Parts: sequence; C-alpha cells; structure tokens
Amino acid sequence: MSITNRQIKYIKSLQTKKGRKLNYQFVAEGVRLLEEALHHNFMPTTILFSANSLSERGNNLVMGFKAKKIECIPVSDKILNSISSTNTPQGIIAVFDIPKTSHYEPKSKKYRKIIWCENISDPGNLGTIIRSALAFDFNMVITTGSCADIYSPKVVRASVGSIFKTDFWETTNEMAINMAKNRKFVLIASTLKGENQSYILNNLNKSSKLILAIGSESEGLSNDILASSDYRIQIRHEKSVESLNAAVAASILMSSFYHI
Amino acid sequence: MSITNRQIKYIKSLQTKKGRKLNYQFVAEGVRLLEEALHHNFMPTTILFSANSLSERGNNLVMGFKAKKIECIPVSDKILNSISSTNTPQGIIAVFDIPKTSHYEPKSKKYRKIIWCENISDPGNLGTIIRSALAFDFNMVITTGSCADIYSPKVVRASVGSIFKTDFWETTNEMAINMAKNRKFVLIASTLKGENQSYILNNLNKSSKLILAIGSESEGLSNDILASSDYRIQIRHEKSVESLNAAVAASILMSSFYHI
Repeated sequence: MSITNRQIKYIKSLQTKKGRKLNYQFVAEGVRLLEEALHHNFMPTTILFSANSLSERGNNLVMGFKAKKIECIPVSDKILNSISSTNTPQGIIAVFDIPKTSHYEPKSKKYRKIIWCENISDPGNLGTIIRSALAFDFNMVITTGSCADIYSPKVVRASVGSIFKTDFWETTNEMAINMAKNRKFVLIASTLKGENQSYILNNLNKSSKLILAIGSESEGLSNDILASSDYRIQIRHEKSVESLNAAVAASILMSSFYHI
Repeated sequence: MSITNRQIKYIKSLQTKKGRKLNYQFVAEGVRLLEEALHHNFMPTTILFSANSLSERGNNLVMGFKAKKIECIPVSDKILNSISSTNTPQGIIAVFDIPKTSHYEPKSKKYRKIIWCENISDPGNLGTIIRSALAFDFNMVITTGSCADIYSPKVVRASVGSIFKTDFWETTNEMAINMAKNRKFVLIASTLKGENQSYILNNLNKSSKLILAIGSESEGLSNDILASSDYRIQIRHEKSVESLNAAVAASILMSSFYHI
C-alpha cells in the first residue's frame, strides 16, 4: 500500500504539540531509537520507511516490525524528508499512540522511586532525565508546570528510547503533592541549600518509597513543593558555579539513590 | 563611536569555527553569561550593546565593563540581531581573545584534577561538562579527537560562563597520554565495563593527581587511552539502558571525586 497526502499531513501535524494533544499520537524516528521501541515491545501503529536510504540494520528493523504485524509503508526519501523533524533523516519514522496512563495518577505499587520534574522546559534536559531515570531504576516520571512536552521529537530523541520503557504522569503540583502524601512517599526536594546525599540516605531504608523533585535552573522548585517536602537535598560543589545543569543535578541525585 | 560594516562582518565571522581559528577570538552573548565573564575578570576586547533592549541589569553590566575600560559600542537592535547566533538575542554581545594557553601543555602544578574529553562532538554536552568541571574542582579540560569547538557559541552558552574560569588544552591523544605519564597523573578511563567509583576512591588519596577520560556515547574511548589508563571506571546502572548521556556520566564521576 502507498501513503496518501492526507496521511502525510496528519503525521506532520504530530511534530507539533497541538497535533499531539488533538490526536493522542506522537512520532519517533531513526534506527537506534526505533530499535529500542521494538526491544521494549512498545509498538507503533504505523512505520514509514525508505528502503534505499536505510542501512542493512535499518532494513532488519523494518522486518522486525513486520513480524509483529505492524503496518510498514515504503515511501520516497522526499516524502520522508518532508515529514522528518531533523535535518538528517535516517530513513524511518514511526507513529505511536501516547499511553493513556500518562493522564492519570499512578495507582500501581510497582513505583518505588519517582522523579518529579517541575518546569524543566529544555527538551534535551527532560529527555536526558528520562534516560537517567531508567538507568537508575526510577520507573515513573512526573511532570508539572511548564515542562517540555514528553512526546515532542527533541525529548524523545534525547531519551534515546528510554521513553518507551518509562511511565509518565503529567499533572499539577497539587495533585502530585496529594499523591505523595496519600501513598506515603518520602518527598525529597532538590535545592541550592539543603542536606547532602549521605545524610538523607542514612534516613532511608530498603522499604522507603521516594519521590525526588527537581526544578528549573533559574527558579528552583516552587514554594508549595518545598513546603510539602520531607527533605531538602543539595549537591555539594564549588561556590564559583551557581548551579548545575538540571539534567546533571537530577542524574547525580538519582545515581546516589540507586542502591537503596 | 559607532560600528563599521567591516567590524560587523568580522564579528559575524567569529560565529564560525574557521573565523575563530583564523583570528583567535570568539564571541559570547547574553546578560547572564557576560556577568560571569565580568565576575571572573575574563575581559572582552569589545562589547556591542543595545541600551533599549537591555534590562536595568543589562545596562548595569555595560557600566561594569566601562568601569574596566572595555570599549562598549552602542548599536541598533537590527545590527545586534544580525550578529547574534540565537533567535532571541539579549541585547549584548562581547568579543574575547581565545587564551593562548589553550594550545600548550599545561605546566602549572595547580592542576590536580583534570577532565579529558575525547570525541565529545555535541556542543551542549561539552559545555555542560565544562560547567560541571568547575563545580567539582576539575580546573583543566583537555579535548582530543573530534570534540566540539570549545569557543563555539553553543559550548560557551551551555557552559553558563564556566568557560571563563576554566583552563583548556586542545591536543592529541598521544600528547595527553605523555603528559599524564610524565607528570604522574593517575589516568582513569570511563568505560561500560570497569570498577565502580568506591573501588577507585579507595586506591586514591589526598595527594593523588588524576585525569578522568570520557569518550563518545556511541564509541567510548579509543584503545590507546584505554591501554594507557591506570583504572577503568564504570557507573553502575540498569542494563535496560545501554549508556548514560556523556555529560551526565562525566558529571557523576567528577562529583564522585569531588571530596578527595
């Protein structure tokens, strides 16, 4: 089967936040990223690919999706380039449903460590935090305030596929604070003035459930989060640097809590 | 005094690697970034500013540079926008000399902790590593291979001013390995398979001088660096993630060595 102009226009619309919110779908592209989707069994609804411009590895990936009964539509390089969000398209683009669960409070007991991002507006930083979260076993990411859109092309790319394996909850500070209290999470707020990691680690144990909250580099966390937190945590560093990059700070803290 | 077309053309040329290599100068823009330059006493040769589009804080910054006898040239928004490397120029651009020392082997004894970046081609990652290096007291950054250009606008921006306080050495693997051996640095290579941080920390002491080497996310470090290293270090994380973001990995490791 071939692709219609209407389909092309539709997929392009998913490169915008408006299009994603309207259709509950998003796009991801590139061989490495989509290998992760296949690996994590996060299945697209449709694949567009250009067999000519794909490497052998890329064509194998298409075979992998076909074996899972995913609709794979061959298209010209020109069409693929017109849809792509990058300057150097890699010959394959996939359309995915946005998981419905990302709009609801996580009820499952499987979440023991959660990272909460408030106002992380840089998509590269948000994607990098998602990648580190999966690496350090934080299997839920909460976003509140003016965070970048989780399913935007830049966030998806910076997550290097971790997006396919992580659960999300887009909510408000109030809802997240209530959840933390109701479900007895220890809420740890990252600040420029607080206790160091060892102090807080000494107060936690293997059964502690924790939420680590990270704010924007310029403003830090909002007062309502700080006021509701059980601990305030600070990464010790030289005073000649005002703050660390938000993704770096989040990752250092998550790595500190990896072994509890 | 006013600005000539020739000066405008010259400053624009510094936005390119070729222009910087030819003229040994670079540009940095924005109030926050240039406040750091003033704060660290890293003085520009020239400032261009648009008084109208600057905040009070920005105009105070211009006063600060004027007090240091720096040439500050008022220009129109139109000229500033035409020179700027960003879509949202902040009303101030400065021209700096590239420190000559960045081409020579660091002889000073003041370097006890050095971060060595090989093939860190993403400018955001390199800038973030420079920022973390300053935060964790690594006061020399070595770059080899196909690293992003330290003085490119994106690296300067991502460093959030740390570029003004850090010493650099752009060199080759061979030269850097020789320096490490001759000056008795402990060379620690970051890999996907090695000892964890605690093991290596236990083998170091307050008088240890160390170089931490970080490679690209896709390829890791070159064999010559691995073969010359005293230790291979690995950040423990879940196997579901192949590797961490390079700036995150470098920062976690530097933070581990902050207190020795």
